[in-house]
Amino acid sequence: MKKVAVLLSGCGVFDGAEIHESVLTLLALDRAGAQAVCVAPDIPQYHVINHLTRQPVPQETRNVLVESARIARGNIVALNQLKPKEVDAVIVPGGFGAAKNLCTFALAGENFEVHPQVASFLREVHQLGKPIGLVCIAPAIAAKLFGPEKVEFTIGNDAGTAQALSKHGASHVNCTVYNAVVDRRHKIVTTPAYMLAGRITEAEAGINKLVQAVLEMA
Amino acid sequence: MKKVAVLLSGCGVFDGAEIHESVLTLLALDRAGAQAVCVAPDIPQYHVINHLTRQPVPQETRNVLVESARIARGNIVALNQLKPKEVDAVIVPGGFGAAKNLCTFALAGENFEVHPQVASFLREVHQLGKPIGLVCIAPAIAAKLFGPEKVEFTIGNDAGTAQALSKHGASHVNCTVYNAVVDRRHKIVTTPAYMLAGRITEAEAGINKLVQAVLEMA
Repeated sequence: MKKVAVLLSGCGVFDGAEIHESVLTLLALDRAGAQAVCVAPDIPQYHVINHLTRQPVPQETRNVLVESARIARGNIVALNQLKPKEVDAVIVPGGFGAAKNLCTFALAGENFEVHPQVASFLREVHQLGKPIGLVCIAPAIAAKLFGPEKVEFTIGNDAGTAQALSKHGASHVNCTVYNAVVDRRHKIVTTPAYMLAGRITEAEAGINKLVQAVLEMA
Repeated sequence: MKKVAVLLSGCGVFDGAEIHESVLTLLALDRAGAQAVCVAPDIPQYHVINHLTRQPVPQETRNVLVESARIARGNIVALNQLKPKEVDAVIVPGGFGAAKNLCTFALAGENFEVHPQVASFLREVHQLGKPIGLVCIAPAIAAKLFGPEKVEFTIGNDAGTAQALSKHGASHVNCTVYNAVVDRRHKIVTTPAYMLAGRITEAEAGINKLVQAVLEMA
């Protein structure tokens, strides 16, 4: 049974992991008979957004691992407790958590940084020749880490975002919500999901393709 | 297009709506071409549980509507703003939120109460002849509200829970995780989901049957 780390970034599209994308990833993995291992960094969230008003709640703090545990039904491990050699692949769902907590693209733009724990984990997974799937805006992380290797990725079709993320050498490929971009040479798979999806079944279509491609290379 | 209210109770299995069950419900509705309208009461959660340690966090308070908005990606309405005549059916996902926030079964046992807003909304939906689907432990609400009508329901196969919920006249029917109990006379549909599921695909199987039966009667 293939073991796939699902790297979460909180719980909620505006400050954490996008919940639908995370659950659809877990569903596709289970359908394919793979074992999902939910994992998240034990770090504070960048901020908390009230998802009803869509405004920040300055007085509140939440922890990425603790909130991600909601999606994982409590079955989650801290990122610094999981060794890359223990898994066959990694998938990173999207949501602003991927671009605020796992990296700073949503805050800093093209000169963003990837959190050191995330960078170190994903670089080692990549060096071990294991595939990495990234959903929605999470491909930003691969564009930054593996850009110098000329990796191909998609975030859908937003030219400004694509250009900002291509700064370090990665090549953006336009992609519909129903598809995934598979860079077989670098074993990087990406799909736009809620960068483009208007309905949950649209997000599901691309995520299913991503999970399938990741498992084929795992 | 059929319009189905999805009544949420927070965001996370231990103090709110079960996230997988909620997303699987939205997915099945979208697949069937129905429109989901997420809704939740604008009330404080009973408490906040740290989903990593599974312990209460006494100093923290969260609001059911605000947290439910995470599952709904911000597209949610307050329960007291939605009129029963505006929807064709209602589905209530499970999670402890259904038994702590929407009713008090997890806290008070057999002498529990249903929150007045929830009771009033669901009674009116029922009186209008519209179907109600309830997942996991949420059938407790139907057992209490519609027990005197001798409604049939399931929470899986836990004899103690079934007995406590049958006190007001409802009849419990044992059911596997792959099935749903359909009381066509009262238009009440229930499925065990994570009362029994060990895997997300098991929860999905029963939820798909529930959604199908609810839509057939809507």
